[in-house]
Amino acid sequence: MLDLYNIIEPEQFVEFYYNTFDGNRTQLAGLYRPNSMLTFEQTPTMGADAIMEKLTGLPFSKVKHQVASLDAQPAAEDGSIVVMVTGALLVDEEQRPMSYSQVFQLKPDGQGSYYVFNDIFRLVYPAA
Amino acid sequence: MLDLYNIIEPEQFVEFYYNTFDGNRTQLAGLYRPNSMLTFEQTPTMGADAIMEKLTGLPFSKVKHQVASLDAQPAAEDGSIVVMVTGALLVDEEQRPMSYSQVFQLKPDGQGSYYVFNDIFRLVYPAA
Repeated sequence: MLDLYNIIEPEQFVEFYYNTFDGNRTQLAGLYRPNSMLTFEQTPTMGADAIMEKLTGLPFSKVKHQVASLDAQPAAEDGSIVVMVTGALLVDEEQRPMSYSQVFQLKPDGQGSYYVFNDIFRLVYPAA
Repeated sequence: MLDLYNIIEPEQFVEFYYNTFDGNRTQLAGLYRPNSMLTFEQTPTMGADAIMEKLTGLPFSKVKHQVASLDAQPAAEDGSIVVMVTGALLVDEEQRPMSYSQVFQLKPDGQGSYYVFNDIFRLVYPAA
């Protein structure tokens, strides 16, 4: 099983997250909990099961994320971390990458590991 | 003095924030506290004074933000809210807007108001 045990550096989390997403996104399930939230392109979902249904149902089979920037800050006294990523992604046979922005709040689960509590994803379209 | 009293809707906060930023950004000071963090284009600052020095020292005199998307989720049981904004901005006489992404975590201050605890800003460049 995947977990975030010993993954406390945001860079490690982000690399792990997108490698897993791009490789076999069914395996992201271990990162979410019943109280996790995902807002994907404006559609809100809550709970690991609904989030996995959303992520595995996305209408592409191949996807590759490329991270352009990653910033993190402490988000609460309990050790939570907020992470903002900007980057580009390519789906299926598409040749033109799309820009995106994604925010995670990682919360400690009280057992030495972290899970994704907040997850917000948006494609970013070029400014007119 | 500006404050966020009664501003609990993320949309209201975001409108207020950018109107103030674009109008007279010295007046953003009321939104930050000594423990607030800003990471602006990779440069970290902490505390309202340092944050205001950073924001007022940015090398443009005119700026206009245009919000393209706004997503928010509850970030903690204390009523904190995480907000991700994507949008475009124009500075000075520049004709071409730049895309940006910004994350805020708004925390209740215990006196019926909110303040900006986390603030991360990045320009988003078009995917290659």
